[in-house]
Amino acid sequence: MPVLPDELRNMIASITPTAKGLRPDAQTKIDNKTKPLGALGKLEDLAVQMSVIQNDLNPALKHKALFVFAGDHGIAAEGVSAFPAEVTGQMVYNFLAGGAAINVICRHHGIEIKVVDMGVAADFEDHPVLLQKKVRKGTRNFAVQNAMTADEAVLALENGAAVFQEAHRSQAIDIVGLGEMGIANTTSATAIICAVTGVSPLKATGRGTGVDDKGLEHKAKVIQKALDFHNPDPADGFDILQRVGGYEIGGIAGAVLAAAAQGAAVVLDGVISTAAGLIAYLINPDIRGYLIAGHRSVEISQTAALEHMQLEPVIDFGMRLGEGTGAAMTIDVVDASCRIMREMASFDKAEVSQQT
Amino acid sequence: MPVLPDELRNMIASITPTAKGLRPDAQTKIDNKTKPLGALGKLEDLAVQMSVIQNDLNPALKHKALFVFAGDHGIAAEGVSAFPAEVTGQMVYNFLAGGAAINVICRHHGIEIKVVDMGVAADFEDHPVLLQKKVRKGTRNFAVQNAMTADEAVLALENGAAVFQEAHRSQAIDIVGLGEMGIANTTSATAIICAVTGVSPLKATGRGTGVDDKGLEHKAKVIQKALDFHNPDPADGFDILQRVGGYEIGGIAGAVLAAAAQGAAVVLDGVISTAAGLIAYLINPDIRGYLIAGHRSVEISQTAALEHMQLEPVIDFGMRLGEGTGAAMTIDVVDASCRIMREMASFDKAEVSQQT
Repeated sequence: MPVLPDELRNMIASITPTAKGLRPDAQTKIDNKTKPLGALGKLEDLAVQMSVIQNDLNPALKHKALFVFAGDHGIAAEGVSAFPAEVTGQMVYNFLAGGAAINVICRHHGIEIKVVDMGVAADFEDHPVLLQKKVRKGTRNFAVQNAMTADEAVLALENGAAVFQEAHRSQAIDIVGLGEMGIANTTSATAIICAVTGVSPLKATGRGTGVDDKGLEHKAKVIQKALDFHNPDPADGFDILQRVGGYEIGGIAGAVLAAAAQGAAVVLDGVISTAAGLIAYLINPDIRGYLIAGHRSVEISQTAALEHMQLEPVIDFGMRLGEGTGAAMTIDVVDASCRIMREMASFDKAEVSQQT
Repeated sequence: MPVLPDELRNMIASITPTAKGLRPDAQTKIDNKTKPLGALGKLEDLAVQMSVIQNDLNPALKHKALFVFAGDHGIAAEGVSAFPAEVTGQMVYNFLAGGAAINVICRHHGIEIKVVDMGVAADFEDHPVLLQKKVRKGTRNFAVQNAMTADEAVLALENGAAVFQEAHRSQAIDIVGLGEMGIANTTSATAIICAVTGVSPLKATGRGTGVDDKGLEHKAKVIQKALDFHNPDPADGFDILQRVGGYEIGGIAGAVLAAAAQGAAVVLDGVISTAAGLIAYLINPDIRGYLIAGHRSVEISQTAALEHMQLEPVIDFGMRLGEGTGAAMTIDVVDASCRIMREMASFDKAEVSQQT
């Protein structure tokens, strides 16, 4: 990892682990609620985790935000996606018009959505929902060269961090979902995860938006060849980002670090968002307590990344859309868990007899 | 099955299968949304199912209801539960005071909750949230005799149906979650499911609210002995209900039938609610298209019941509380799926390129 600019370096260094000291009290509080021990399953785990993150036995999600980071990928030239590259920009317009799945789910759950252009190969007019943070119009083709320069990798992290920080300054964010859009970015994400975890691309590559069997084999070979060519350091998130990453992935990694630095809960989405979380985790593992794995993606490599961080996903709906859709569904489950911690009666208060 | 009273019999006969003719159009509509085919997983299945249930390509949940059916069980005398029997009545007061998990989740998701006394061994004052439909103060101990008389089984079905019908008349219900409270009722539910599916109680009995290993073995033996004693007809839901059921279970079965008769979607909860759904399914299998399996319970026998009806649960949060908590979490997922069907843009409308 190069020497990072002061502000970015200081932000990363400022991250402190979550307030684990509160965990026993949080566990006692949820155990005394009117239900058999552990009977609310994952909702109880989330209630305890949110108490620890907020260092408060009455955790609350007053402001819920979600960012969709968009970027194009030079690797698309290798024919790794079922959709043409122009779809990245077209989907940005769809997000701005409110017509994509992530818009619907965010409206449903009262989550404020912003779209971030980190590196789309198109120009956009200003729009209230759009944050212009473009590093460059698409990464380079990492089959034959680094996806980005070191300066661009730094800028991607900085811009992603700034996205969170600027929004957080105008209204404190309690929980943030991190989604993405970028044709060919499951190829980049899978390369990142294979580089870090050592899992073989031949085993871990998935169909992304829907390549067929032949396309899947080709995609896995492209990733394997790229990893052979780059041979990235599995412990160096910055090196991996620069060699096989994407601008939207760097942006998400920066936002994860910035959110953890501010003590906000971070909900990862599918394979790309999780790969970006993994980059951030390599840069500073103290983020781990702030991370919530939103959902189990159909993409195989995501599981390897989650296991590397010892995270268990909340929902498993067979989704593989990205955009932050799994994260947005999960944010509402976290919200419910916080309300349970705050509002549910204890055995004492409700005068209910306990287990004999 | 005895000859049922005219009104109940006519209601059951009036149930028509869901409008499967609409399914291809609903599938086409969801396929043309701006996402790869099938990328929203279970949300797409639910969007199609709700379109078919409502016979409308723009399904909507304008009014969401949940009923918690409560009843006591004579079988509790066999020492099959980790909690004392008086907890059933105590929890009814907790529901009325708004302090239980189901109250919190219903508040969070905008679901109207009512509590139904089907057979609690306690008297309750009138309360705006309470529906007084008591058949009797607790069933008889089905280890040594029928849990209820034939007249009581009919009354349980009638009262449960009336609960749905009366609420539906005052405000049309689009979706209803069906939960329960009743100490020892996982014993009754497991007996029902084993009777219908032929699964062995020694394999399928779960810990309910939390019996230990010794208690689990005892509980399984109690169920096995009761089934040997009663030898219920596996195809006769009414016979099984009378022999080893519960008043709250009969109530739920009646509500399922009444809801299907009115074309409302029905969300089952954990093992008890699912056992009640199974009783209703035996009485009229045409309800199947209206059923949504809310969640995967930790209780093992629930899976056998779901497989018997070919239902796949929506969520799997490791929950085992009952009350309708899994159903209430799922109702919001169904709500999101309806909004996706209504609000998400098509490829054409958003001018996004399709798969190549």
